Amino acid sequence: MKGNLVYGQSGGPSSVINASAYGVIHEALERSDKIDKVYIMKHGIDGVINDNLIDAEAILHQIDLLPKTPASAFGSVRYKMPKEDAEVYGKIFDTFEKYNIRYFVYNGGNDSMDTCVKLEKYAKKIDYKLRVIGVPKTVDNDLPHTDHTPGFGSAAKYIINTIMQIKLDSTVYPKGKITIVEIMGRHAGWLTAASAVASLNDLGPDLIYLPEHNVDVNDIAKDVQKIYSKQQNCLIAVSEGIKDKEGNFIGMSNSFKDAFGHNQLGGVGIKLGEMIQEKTGISYRAIELSSTQRSASFIQSETDVIEAIQVGKHAVKSILEGESGKMVVINRVSDDPYKVEYGVHNVSDIANEEKVIPESMFTNGVLNQKFFNYILPLIEGQAETQYEKGMQKLFKL
Amino acid sequence: MKGNLVYGQSGGPSSVINASAYGVIHEALERSDKIDKVYIMKHGIDGVINDNLIDAEAILHQIDLLPKTPASAFGSVRYKMPKEDAEVYGKIFDTFEKYNIRYFVYNGGNDSMDTCVKLEKYAKKIDYKLRVIGVPKTVDNDLPHTDHTPGFGSAAKYIINTIMQIKLDSTVYPKGKITIVEIMGRHAGWLTAASAVASLNDLGPDLIYLPEHNVDVNDIAKDVQKIYSKQQNCLIAVSEGIKDKEGNFIGMSNSFKDAFGHNQLGGVGIKLGEMIQEKTGISYRAIELSSTQRSASFIQSETDVIEAIQVGKHAVKSILEGESGKMVVINRVSDDPYKVEYGVHNVSDIANEEKVIPESMFTNGVLNQKFFNYILPLIEGQAETQYEKGMQKLFKL
Repeated sequence: MKGNLVYGQSGGPSSVINASAYGVIHEALERSDKIDKVYIMKHGIDGVINDNLIDAEAILHQIDLLPKTPASAFGSVRYKMPKEDAEVYGKIFDTFEKYNIRYFVYNGGNDSMDTCVKLEKYAKKIDYKLRVIGVPKTVDNDLPHTDHTPGFGSAAKYIINTIMQIKLDSTVYPKGKITIVEIMGRHAGWLTAASAVASLNDLGPDLIYLPEHNVDVNDIAKDVQKIYSKQQNCLIAVSEGIKDKEGNFIGMSNSFKDAFGHNQLGGVGIKLGEMIQEKTGISYRAIELSSTQRSASFIQSETDVIEAIQVGKHAVKSILEGESGKMVVINRVSDDPYKVEYGVHNVSDIANEEKVIPESMFTNGVLNQKFFNYILPLIEGQAETQYEKGMQKLFKL
Repeated sequence: MKGNLVYGQSGGPSSVINASAYGVIHEALERSDKIDKVYIMKHGIDGVINDNLIDAEAILHQIDLLPKTPASAFGSVRYKMPKEDAEVYGKIFDTFEKYNIRYFVYNGGNDSMDTCVKLEKYAKKIDYKLRVIGVPKTVDNDLPHTDHTPGFGSAAKYIINTIMQIKLDSTVYPKGKITIVEIMGRHAGWLTAASAVASLNDLGPDLIYLPEHNVDVNDIAKDVQKIYSKQQNCLIAVSEGIKDKEGNFIGMSNSFKDAFGHNQLGGVGIKLGEMIQEKTGISYRAIELSSTQRSASFIQSETDVIEAIQVGKHAVKSILEGESGKMVVINRVSDDPYKVEYGVHNVSDIANEEKVIPESMFTNGVLNQKFFNYILPLIEGQAETQYEKGMQKLFKL
């Protein structure tokens, strides 16, 4: 099947999603045997709906900057595809026809994979020849059926090194405070768990709370009191999505719903701080790592960048080999030496499912060696960063 | 005069204060003609009061890691020296006598310089032979009589590059929010002003608010509305210390006083966001850069690191040449090529005085070329960073 390919980015930014864009575009342009033209959606599926596509030739002069540039270089979108009877499908397939799109490559997380599932189904229904493939991306590392997700390693590396800096920063005074660092992760605690790696360098958090295990604020206050009495400071890493004994989000009262109907969390650091302060009388400082944790392109993991490029390339290879309705996955062959292979998995198994930290990575509630063996290779290597006049050189659309 | 030297760190952390420690210790150890032993205070003056000094020989094996390590490696303190009749002076000079301290080198900001002034005065009063010198350090860049302060360049570089990342991150969606980035600076807006440099790369804030100019929230809301209508997003950089028309801190209601009696600010991003949202109906996200901005050792300015080492060395040279009651200052000889010389200035002129951005760096309220000429050389060059297993190699006491 010869035709054109369209690539798009969806969902929240990561520091390596554009490395996957680089991989897709680079590989697709080399396959003129099957692909005539490569298009890029502006703001993901929104660009297809509104006939807003970019010819990849137009950005080739700066393609080498893509892997170093954080956030979605071509714009992203948070759009929940409606049921297949909706008018919007007509618009989408009009654009596909207009540009002779036969290959649809979509880069994102759970919700983006849902878009892949629905588009493939609709194409079959109207008998439009289209192959659909997903490219995984999410700093949260919560996609199932893949060892890990591009974006996670770099965000983890930023968090680990920042926690080390905060540990140094928060322990300089003879008498310190409780410092609470709020880290991304709605249902999966991978990013917050990463902070434990800093402990290998004696600069980790004293306490870590994850969405995987409900917490009891009374127990937390007791643990903090014990640590504070000994060292006059206490560093806590906490996921935005931690829940109390009853299973309610502690950060819930600030919540509002996003376009997917998910509750947006935030402010759990301050809320937990107030609760602990009330019970212990010790003052606290809350630090929300916020969007910097997913966009910190000055501290990318080299492993993550390389893999992000490779999943992009593998998506193009697979789709040209006839795969459709799949997402590219990373299969780990061994921890040490670290080795992975790339494959594909049914995207319908992946959409709307979330992978949390398995119980096998905990011993008595504490992250164990299995977790460290898992995460350490993912943060290995420092990707080269180019500065000009003190500023990072970045891709600009 | 032959005797021993003691070096200490005080006040808030920076990412290069330990580069100055490196400079002081390195230079002092080479001057065995005048200095027998080099001691380091644990937690600044607190270590002198409580007879808690470290022999510099004990840390020599890892001295090369000092310039890359953020926060005060030997501990800091926030201690306001009382009037000279206080008992604590007796303790301090007992320790000086016990260790034959004749050279006192103190590294910090305004309040630390006040400590230098008082100790020199007391030494004269009791006829104890002591020379005192200050080494400047503050990310806030608010010390007078020096062109700039070590720590500022690296913090500015982190802020500029992080603003670029936040700009990319906050503009990915077709319809975005107001993003408010809260940056350190109680009375001086230098760090927030730095964010304007990102505009040279087309990735700067749309609006900047500084403590130098009181703001009117109604005007802000109008400016935001205008920008948002055009581009469906708006990025604001704001100093923690901005004041309203009446001169009251906007972040004031969260305030509490620190050991020096200063009001601690915080939460101005959220407060301003709520005010703007109320007036415009546009939702906002507040990002507080928090302590990461002063401790981000993975993005030090090379110029800043080199100068931080040099001010440390110059402090030792000056004190051995007979200077006392002085602080080392950086005098700029030219902008382009950038060239500085090191000198000293009376510490009593510096203590408790704050340097804000001069009006000459604004044109119609907007930062002008004079500001850019001033700041650009300070962020130049990327200091080398060493990683081991994905983690920065850091000095550990």
